[in-house]
Amino acid sequence: MEKMDMKKVPLPEKSLLEQLDLPGDLKKLDMAQCQELCQEIRNLLIETVSKTGGHLASNLGAVELTVAMHRVFTSPEDKFVWDVGHQCYTHKILTGRLNAFSTLRQEDGISGFPKPSESEHDVFISGHSSTAISVANGIAEGMRLQGDREHFAIAVIGDGAMTGGLAYEGMNNAGKSGNNLIVILNDNDMSISKNVGSLARYLSSIRGSEGYVRTKKAVERRLNQTAVIGPSVAKVIKNSKSVVREALLHSATLFEDFGFVYLGPVDGHDQGAIEEVLLAAKQYHRPVFIHLNTVKGKGYPPAEQNPGEYHGISKFDIETGNPEVSGKDSYSSVFGQELTHLAVRDSRICAITAAMESGTGLHYFAKEFPKRYFDVGIAEQYAVTFSAALASTGQLPVFAVYSSFLQRAYDQLMHDVAIGGLHVVLGVDRAGVVGEDGETHHGLYDVSYLATVPNTTIYAPACYDELRLCLRRALYRDKGLVCVRYPRGADNSVFDKSALNTEYTHVSGQRTDVLCISYGRIYDNLYQASRRAKEAGMPCDLLKLTRIFPLSDAVVELASTYQHVLFLEEAYYYGGISQIFGDALMQHGFHGSYRRVAPKEYLAHASMASQIEKIQLSADAIFRHIQQIYQEEQGDGET
Amino acid sequence: MEKMDMKKVPLPEKSLLEQLDLPGDLKKLDMAQCQELCQEIRNLLIETVSKTGGHLASNLGAVELTVAMHRVFTSPEDKFVWDVGHQCYTHKILTGRLNAFSTLRQEDGISGFPKPSESEHDVFISGHSSTAISVANGIAEGMRLQGDREHFAIAVIGDGAMTGGLAYEGMNNAGKSGNNLIVILNDNDMSISKNVGSLARYLSSIRGSEGYVRTKKAVERRLNQTAVIGPSVAKVIKNSKSVVREALLHSATLFEDFGFVYLGPVDGHDQGAIEEVLLAAKQYHRPVFIHLNTVKGKGYPPAEQNPGEYHGISKFDIETGNPEVSGKDSYSSVFGQELTHLAVRDSRICAITAAMESGTGLHYFAKEFPKRYFDVGIAEQYAVTFSAALASTGQLPVFAVYSSFLQRAYDQLMHDVAIGGLHVVLGVDRAGVVGEDGETHHGLYDVSYLATVPNTTIYAPACYDELRLCLRRALYRDKGLVCVRYPRGADNSVFDKSALNTEYTHVSGQRTDVLCISYGRIYDNLYQASRRAKEAGMPCDLLKLTRIFPLSDAVVELASTYQHVLFLEEAYYYGGISQIFGDALMQHGFHGSYRRVAPKEYLAHASMASQIEKIQLSADAIFRHIQQIYQEEQGDGET
Repeated sequence: MEKMDMKKVPLPEKSLLEQLDLPGDLKKLDMAQCQELCQEIRNLLIETVSKTGGHLASNLGAVELTVAMHRVFTSPEDKFVWDVGHQCYTHKILTGRLNAFSTLRQEDGISGFPKPSESEHDVFISGHSSTAISVANGIAEGMRLQGDREHFAIAVIGDGAMTGGLAYEGMNNAGKSGNNLIVILNDNDMSISKNVGSLARYLSSIRGSEGYVRTKKAVERRLNQTAVIGPSVAKVIKNSKSVVREALLHSATLFEDFGFVYLGPVDGHDQGAIEEVLLAAKQYHRPVFIHLNTVKGKGYPPAEQNPGEYHGISKFDIETGNPEVSGKDSYSSVFGQELTHLAVRDSRICAITAAMESGTGLHYFAKEFPKRYFDVGIAEQYAVTFSAALASTGQLPVFAVYSSFLQRAYDQLMHDVAIGGLHVVLGVDRAGVVGEDGETHHGLYDVSYLATVPNTTIYAPACYDELRLCLRRALYRDKGLVCVRYPRGADNSVFDKSALNTEYTHVSGQRTDVLCISYGRIYDNLYQASRRAKEAGMPCDLLKLTRIFPLSDAVVELASTYQHVLFLEEAYYYGGISQIFGDALMQHGFHGSYRRVAPKEYLAHASMASQIEKIQLSADAIFRHIQQIYQEEQGDGET
Repeated sequence: MEKMDMKKVPLPEKSLLEQLDLPGDLKKLDMAQCQELCQEIRNLLIETVSKTGGHLASNLGAVELTVAMHRVFTSPEDKFVWDVGHQCYTHKILTGRLNAFSTLRQEDGISGFPKPSESEHDVFISGHSSTAISVANGIAEGMRLQGDREHFAIAVIGDGAMTGGLAYEGMNNAGKSGNNLIVILNDNDMSISKNVGSLARYLSSIRGSEGYVRTKKAVERRLNQTAVIGPSVAKVIKNSKSVVREALLHSATLFEDFGFVYLGPVDGHDQGAIEEVLLAAKQYHRPVFIHLNTVKGKGYPPAEQNPGEYHGISKFDIETGNPEVSGKDSYSSVFGQELTHLAVRDSRICAITAAMESGTGLHYFAKEFPKRYFDVGIAEQYAVTFSAALASTGQLPVFAVYSSFLQRAYDQLMHDVAIGGLHVVLGVDRAGVVGEDGETHHGLYDVSYLATVPNTTIYAPACYDELRLCLRRALYRDKGLVCVRYPRGADNSVFDKSALNTEYTHVSGQRTDVLCISYGRIYDNLYQASRRAKEAGMPCDLLKLTRIFPLSDAVVELASTYQHVLFLEEAYYYGGISQIFGDALMQHGFHGSYRRVAPKEYLAHASMASQIEKIQLSADAIFRHIQQIYQEEQGDGET
């Protein structure tokens, strides 16, 4: 691997970034200065992300594009909509967040995603994939209704995000409009892991064709020489289109079939070429689709060579490119390994991912059983419906998916899996708070919405061994939709594991009126808190739920024998298990006190530990809850 | 309108339908007999649906196709997957349900949608749009994994359903596979109302081209003459493809870009042509896309002339074609009229529908304000994200959508609307049970899943006037995501409307320990039950919630002053308001009795009245619940 020595070369004292009044001054730069600026931005991206972690490769690939957008358009009057959002770092640097950039993804620092509350230049929240075309067309429609024909809504979307159905719905609706909409396809031939599907193959077939660009460039160059471009010139472009198309080896009809003017492919690291094509796009005043070829990780050899690893990366050493390796297993890897292990003996098991092969630990399975492994692209709806259909043929499909992204397949769970009672297993990864990715990525809602899917079973293991047990039970004992939810990161639990099972564990010590209930990783915090509480003379019994839904009568019955019940839950307040439990206690005629602790508010980016503290589920916080019960009881006793 | 006299000509005593052993005997028929059979089926469809109501136009358009499918393929070994499902009537008639056909959509009769529990020929549940390609590819993949290279999975999908993102995700994933998958596009140039979007325009551009078919036919005819078709012949077809394509006026590259072999367009009422193209498709053993042009309502002039009205129709008079007109308003029409009324004075109001212009009552708006009206096709995800973006520009978007279909946009509500706190109003139509459409269409889940969307407000008006009040408040007093849910059909309520408001109404009569709570149309049943109960000496106070979420402390406080609380809810048991209420009472320290009545199980097709009786929410059933409380109280008193 080529050695980098950026660490040794700090930013020059008077860097362009520091000198300029951004983003306005960008328009005054010549091409050489632009190149210098792009290099400064790259260095800053690498230096910052090496310390904060974040999305590096995609941002390195979008530097020239972002600079070009800010030179050709005027934000925030022109609206930039970043699909998935994680490629917006350069945009942030250029729009008032240069000095704050070192706080990227840190608590109280700037977000790693567009956030309207952070800047007027961030016009729309993003974090999930495939939304940008729909968003930009909505904004363009609003502009049209308000009589603004001067400005543009510009969506920047990756080829990976184009595999999501919402991107297609956006294309289908936007193409026919007469809106000032520009869609820029940032095509780096891979989204998170290798891009899949027919569209990917189609894109690679046009990626190679350069004829169009060359001919087009000539047309556009002429346009750029025209100071004011009137309707007549625009007409010339339109008329020349068919001529230009003759020069094409492969006409890009797919996007044209959707009603867009297609311009491309253009080298996404040739600043001049990008600006030319953006200027040309401005002339049409109808939906234009620009196709850019970019290199993910551009300018940082380790990232160019291994863009998948540098997609979302933790802190790393700039010189070697080596990330801080935890060297530890994670819930994801344990899940992936166990599933692979089970699949050796059971040829019915199939594994499905929506573009998250490594993230979900399915790379083990993919390697061992490529024929039974399906990476469907960023298409969670398809993943679920396809799984249901596989199940209908007698296969055993397991879809491993991040909790937050599973939200996209809610109707498919309801309509395609549940009504038919098909046996589909979900590995619900990144359940609970996720840390630095913030609001758009938390896995706090799955419990609530999965519990609304009839006849669903949900497990929430509290350690690796329990995860393995739950997966086996989900595959071999349960029917219908069975979900196993587990958090981001590693199992650091210390609780007593002598009686693991897939139902519940009641830890009853000395006589006490207080029962504390939890599940998943929070149980270990509860365990630790209870030990401290016991030492402090505030003993409480514990109930660890492993199958959290449906609730068994036994656990409600058991809880009813206590005077005080406290339920601690790392899932949304409304619709969660502690709510179901509260209602069940009510109907059961429980007359003791019931409290529950579960997050209600959005949680901004911060470390997972800090977020867990904030939602009052750390061992310290739980200790305080127990303390409060004892204090109030004492108070009651006194009155 | 041309007069029909089918009513006067009953089926001949020895109809083909009665004589044949179906579906096997179909293969023995000659073309003339097929035509006769198709006519018999059409007559049966018209006669039956005129009595039962149902989906007529789409079924009349698919008669020849369905007969051809059963002649060329062998169900259930070959798997037929019907997108949306409502065009499966002929399939049902041909697969063992001829005698039961008169019970279509009736309680304990056959379903209007494919239902695996009803027949092995119904391989997968459907009712929602755009699922078939994904389902069929999953089934084809299962076949492949199990070594079956002989049989096929065949998806039949309409052009309207192709506007849904899931259809695209299916295309993108299926096209690259080597599966025995055939997708038949039943292109009738309109789905439910007029088809929209670029794809529709694209399809109409190829609909006119006939060259391909003619050339193709010659090739296929040769194939049909070959008794056993081996790989060498298949190779010939593949090689001839490029030659055939030369003959095309417009090459159908869109579908080919997705990796499918494209065959078509073919006249979907020419039985011979359909069978030829199906036979050709069988040779490829890789994904084939067949494009059929059909006429919705084919063979019944009133339906041909007004296919929108005959899409889903109530009972009608065969001779005149006139449907049984209720002549009454519905919640949908009141919603649509009120919104149109408000939009006169407020140019920010925009209305959005996902292909349900008439169904949601938005045709009034569409007529008055075409520029602010958006029919986005069957694309609920886009509808929500687009609405969010419109809201971000300061418009006031109102998306009217059936509860069951809104499920498809759950993530868009979560990610695109809620996190940004954008002001989007939802008209959640068909909330509650929907009657004859059955399991796939009930609007029983919206309360549960909408309550999991942070900062959402939900109203459930109990009469037209309350609906109007709620809509105004949703637009002008609330912020963020605001949902107004209302049922299918008309307001027949008789309760006292002197104190309508958008919060809650407490009806307190003589002193009683019993409080009954409900909302929406069920409140009127409760009102009626309470009058009977009062007469029977079992008085109870009533609480009508209008804003059902978030719950105000006041209503929990109020309920806590009673000894017995009964909550009656026409929404799913888990996650619903009665569950939230139960938990709130528990945490509030309520020590009385709490019961709740809400549906837990799936409800098969039947009349709405019967379904409401079944879920114990009719006035009679509610009376019995009240009676039970009094009986138990008495019992308690005695012990």
